[in-house]
This record gives sequence, structure tokens and C-alpha cells, in this order.
Amino acid sequence: MKKHNFYAGPSILPESAIEETVKALQDFAGTGLSLASISHRSKEFDAVMNEAVALFKELLEIPEGYSVLFLGGGASTQFAMIPFNLMRKKAMYVNTGTWSTKAIKEAKLFGDVIEIKGDDFFSIPKNYDIPSDIDYLHITGNNTIYGTEYHKDLDVNVPLVADMSSDIFGRKIDVSKYALIYGGAQKNLAPAGVTFVIIKNDILGKVDHKIPTMLNYQTHIDKNSMFNTPPVIPIFAALQTLKWIKANGGVEGAYKRNVEKAEVLYKEIDRNKLFKGTVAKEDRSLMNICFVMNEEYKSLETEFAEFAASKGMIGIKGHRSVGGFRASTYNALPLESVKALVEVMQEFEAKH
Amino acid sequence: MKKHNFYAGPSILPESAIEETVKALQDFAGTGLSLASISHRSKEFDAVMNEAVALFKELLEIPEGYSVLFLGGGASTQFAMIPFNLMRKKAMYVNTGTWSTKAIKEAKLFGDVIEIKGDDFFSIPKNYDIPSDIDYLHITGNNTIYGTEYHKDLDVNVPLVADMSSDIFGRKIDVSKYALIYGGAQKNLAPAGVTFVIIKNDILGKVDHKIPTMLNYQTHIDKNSMFNTPPVIPIFAALQTLKWIKANGGVEGAYKRNVEKAEVLYKEIDRNKLFKGTVAKEDRSLMNICFVMNEEYKSLETEFAEFAASKGMIGIKGHRSVGGFRASTYNALPLESVKALVEVMQEFEAKH
Repeated sequence: MKKHNFYAGPSILPESAIEETVKALQDFAGTGLSLASISHRSKEFDAVMNEAVALFKELLEIPEGYSVLFLGGGASTQFAMIPFNLMRKKAMYVNTGTWSTKAIKEAKLFGDVIEIKGDDFFSIPKNYDIPSDIDYLHITGNNTIYGTEYHKDLDVNVPLVADMSSDIFGRKIDVSKYALIYGGAQKNLAPAGVTFVIIKNDILGKVDHKIPTMLNYQTHIDKNSMFNTPPVIPIFAALQTLKWIKANGGVEGAYKRNVEKAEVLYKEIDRNKLFKGTVAKEDRSLMNICFVMNEEYKSLETEFAEFAASKGMIGIKGHRSVGGFRASTYNALPLESVKALVEVMQEFEAKH
Repeated sequence: MKKHNFYAGPSILPESAIEETVKALQDFAGTGLSLASISHRSKEFDAVMNEAVALFKELLEIPEGYSVLFLGGGASTQFAMIPFNLMRKKAMYVNTGTWSTKAIKEAKLFGDVIEIKGDDFFSIPKNYDIPSDIDYLHITGNNTIYGTEYHKDLDVNVPLVADMSSDIFGRKIDVSKYALIYGGAQKNLAPAGVTFVIIKNDILGKVDHKIPTMLNYQTHIDKNSMFNTPPVIPIFAALQTLKWIKANGGVEGAYKRNVEKAEVLYKEIDRNKLFKGTVAKEDRSLMNICFVMNEEYKSLETEFAEFAASKGMIGIKGHRSVGGFRASTYNALPLESVKALVEVMQEFEAKH
């Protein structure tokens, strides 16, 4: 049976990215050696790193004055690295859920945090004043757990920092509006184990405290992400994904497909008598589509989960902290999988 | 032509580890999904993590009261994490080369460092007093760049911390003598991107300063290395290497093979008129065998490098900071490769 991979992350990657990675594990760039066993200082891997950085910049139209880094440690390490590098006194964080909350916890170790938070996490806070004397404003571009997403870049007069772990390459962004964008790559880009950082070079060097070498962005900028051994296989796979994005209409193409997939699924959620969406319509994510059973059908939740699983739907259980269902529809997920899920929802509706 | 992989790291891995990783990238544990696209919270990956931890403990006979962690960020991140977690006031570091020097630099951000250093890095300092009031003593088990290695566990009365990035599983160790052992896995264990930590649980919780969540060992102990998304592919590959070690006589078997390989190569270095070893004999590494051309043949260095490369020897150039040659002979390198290198050295000798 065909499996449809709706995991929230690590999640579906383009087939070509996996196929190329498999080939490289068998024989990397004609070296006769496996990608798993090649020195990161070899000219062959150096070329991979350079091409990945260049293509990353090309696809996102990153302006001069920014660096692109590929690091280890996950976005969770970035939660501490950002205040370590940027926090002099205080920063503002918009709290849109679990990930923002974790980022805020780390920032508080380094200075004062002004927290902006709505009544719940089913919409994104919108009207708030931004003091001009903060070191930066931090947002989470897409909340994988609650299924909210910023659909436009914010216009602000302070350095803007965004966690885009799950929406990078999902829509066009204007990088010049950001001081720093970061994310774990294991949703739209690569297997788990690599973290990307897009950083405006001139925001660094302004804090007084000492920064451990590996937590200092300047270290990695100076060494083109090769200060220490980088995560070779995930970076190679990321390059293959970037090539796939380019070959399929770039970020604009990915966005169009994402909009179409989301429309098909949200339409069914809104139509189907059994289900309802959880998120304010204007903030609904294109990447993680969350829904629950309507009150009167709540008792069918487990039955639906099992029914969907029996039809090859994988990973649609909602995050343990919110329950219900979540279909993650990242770049690499084909429309066909969304249609298959819609069919399953309709079949299940017909039974009840 | 057969390639012989002498890279210092990332480096050669068992063929079975690569083959199993390739298979899992195509279909992981019968899920119909790729290992690259599977949730780390899936029961299938959870089983991988648990088995890897269990086998790691079994092979090293790790006693009760220790945890085994698989983290991102590389050993270089550990250089800061160790003092972050363990340094109250002062620690002692034995400086045996580049990696110790880097570790010392980070430790100095957190407290006083008593540094023990010889006249050069071609032997390991041996006779020094260890104050009883230090928080820990840090050593580098094997120095990949200079080719020195501790062949016995130290007996000390303070918490002992060891970087075993390049010698873990290379010889039997008595883990009970250590408070913490860590290392990048990309030499004897896995592709780049995962870092192992063996930690005695009761050494934690003694520092006063606050520790960022991701840099706190307790975070990862409490969550079995799943606080955040772990590097899935490298951990899977590590498990395959551990299985290979077990199937081939365990650590004792690996050690015997390593001794044999090292004897064959050092014997040739000592015999061949063109070459000489650089390290004090009692400290010669079983993992990284360093040698240079004798003074009168120095001008042949480039010619030998090219000759060896033409015979399929890969990665024998010495580290850029010391020059000469280095053959890394990690667990997975077959004796056959060492014999092939010896033949090349003899052929080259016969020409001159």
C-alpha cells in the first residue's frame, strides 16, 4: 500500500534528494569512497558546501552582507545562541506556542524579555507596540504544533529574528527585512542533524560578555561552517533538496503548490461534518494543518486515527500537547497525498 | 583501482554500517518510508535509539549510574559544555595538542585552568601533581594531529574527563575511572553529525551558574537524547557500527586488530630508510600513525604523496598544522589497507 508521509518533522523529502544521497553513500562524486567516510576537508565535500550556500542564497535572493551557515545542534541550540550573540539588555518575543516559549526561556538567561502573547495559540498576536530600544524582536514564522503561520514579512524598525524551521522555502520572503533567520532543516530541507542560519553580518560584535567559540556566529562565518566537522550527510541532502526546489519553479513554485494543497485540505475540513479547523482563518498554516473532530463526534477520534492509518496515512496524530490531528504538508509532500487524505475523511464521514 | 581510506575523520566505517544505512534510506524498518523522512518520535526510531544506547553500554561494559547520550554540535561544543556543567572554580587540563588547546580556551571562560604541557606534542606529559581541590582533570585520549595516545586509563583521585573522539572502541577502557567521556563520532563510530557522551550522573548539579537548556547534560539525560530532534541518520549508522564491533570480537577484537595494524606500519616506518616516526615510542597512537621523510629525503615529500595517491592511498597527508604524513588506522580500516601502504612505501624506497 502507498504510504502518505504527513510527519511534522523529520518529514518527507523530495525523492530525488534521497536517491542522490543513497548514490553518494555508495560512491561519492566518483571518489570510490562513501559520503559517510569522506573527509569534510576533501575538495569534493568543499564543493558541496559551497554549492549549498550559493544555491541557498540564490533561491531566497539573499542580499549582500548576509552569511548562510550550516551548523549542528538543532534550532533548540539557536534559542540560546541568539541571545548569547545579540542580547545586550532586552529583547521582545512574540509567543505563538511551544517553540517560542522555549526560545523565551533561554533568552531570559541573558537579559529582559518583553513577551507578547495572545489569549491562546490559535491565532498570531497582531497589534502591539515595539519599543525602539530593544536589541531584537523574535518571532516564530510557523508554529508546527498549533498550526499558525505568518503569511507576510513583518515591517519593523528593530532587528528582526525569525525561527523558520518549518516554513523556510515554503513561501517567498524578503530577507532584507530580517537580521537573522534560523531553523532546524528537518522539515523542508534535509534529514535531521543540520541547522541553517541566515545572518546579517553587521549585527554581530555588539555584546559585552564572552561567547564560547562554538556558540559564536562569527566563528562559523569566518570558517564557512567548517570550523569543526559539519554534519556531512545532512548538508549533502540539503543541497539535493535545494536543487529540487530550483528545478521545480523555485520558492514561488513551492509556494503555489503549498497554497493549492492547503486549500484542498482546509476546504474539506470546513465542509466535512465530522471535523473542524482549530486556527483563526487568516493565520492558518500552509505547512501544518491542524484539525479536530467536532464536539458531537469526539468519540470517533481513535477510530478515525486507525482508519486513516489503515489507508496508509502516516503521522497525522496531533502533537501530544494539543491532541486532534495534524497533517504536515511541507514542500515535498505531493498534492496526491493531500487528495488521498481528503478521500479518507470523506469515506469516514460516509460511514457515520 | 581499490581505494584505501586513511582519512583522519570523517573516516572509514564498516561496509555493513554503510550498506544498512543505504537500505534504511530506501525503506526503514519496513515502514515504507525513508530513514531520512521518519519522525524521531516513531516507535521504529525510538527502538534504534534504545538499542544504540544499550549496545554502547554493553560493549564498553559501562557500570550502573552512567548515561550514554547522542547529541549534535560536535566535540567542539563539548569543549564549552563540560566547564558549563562541571566547572565551579578550577580544573586541570593536560595539553597534548590542537584539540586540548581548543578545550582549554573554552574552559578559561568559566574558571581557572591549570595547564600541564610538555616541551612539544610528540609525547604525553607524565609526571605531574594533581591538586585534590580541582573540579576535574581533562585529557585527550588520542591526539589525531600529533599521533599520540594514552594506552592505559589514568588512576586519579579527581573526576576524570576524557575526549575520546578518535580512540573510543579502539581499546578496552575502564569506564568507572572516568566521570565523563565524550567525542565526535566521525572516526570510529558514525558519519559526521553525532557526538557521544558517557556521563556519571552524580557529577551534575554542582555548579551555581545557570546553564542554557541545550547545554545542560541533565536535559538530555532526562529525555534519553530526545529533548530535541536528534541526528537520526548518524545515530542509525552508529548502531550498525556497534553491531559490527560486537560481531567481530567486541572491543577486545578491535584492539587486537588495531595493534596488529599499528605494528605492521610502525615497523615499516622504523625500517624504511626514507621515513621516520615523529612520536615517542611509548606514546605512539594506534589510531593515527604519523611519520615524516628523513632529513636527507625531505625533498621527496611531494613525490611520495603523489606516488601514494596514484596507488589508491587516500588521506595520508599530515594535518596542515604539522605536515608530513598520517595514516589513520581506525577500527574499520582493514589490515589489507595497511599492507598496501607498506608496499607503496617499499616500492618508493626501491626507486630511491
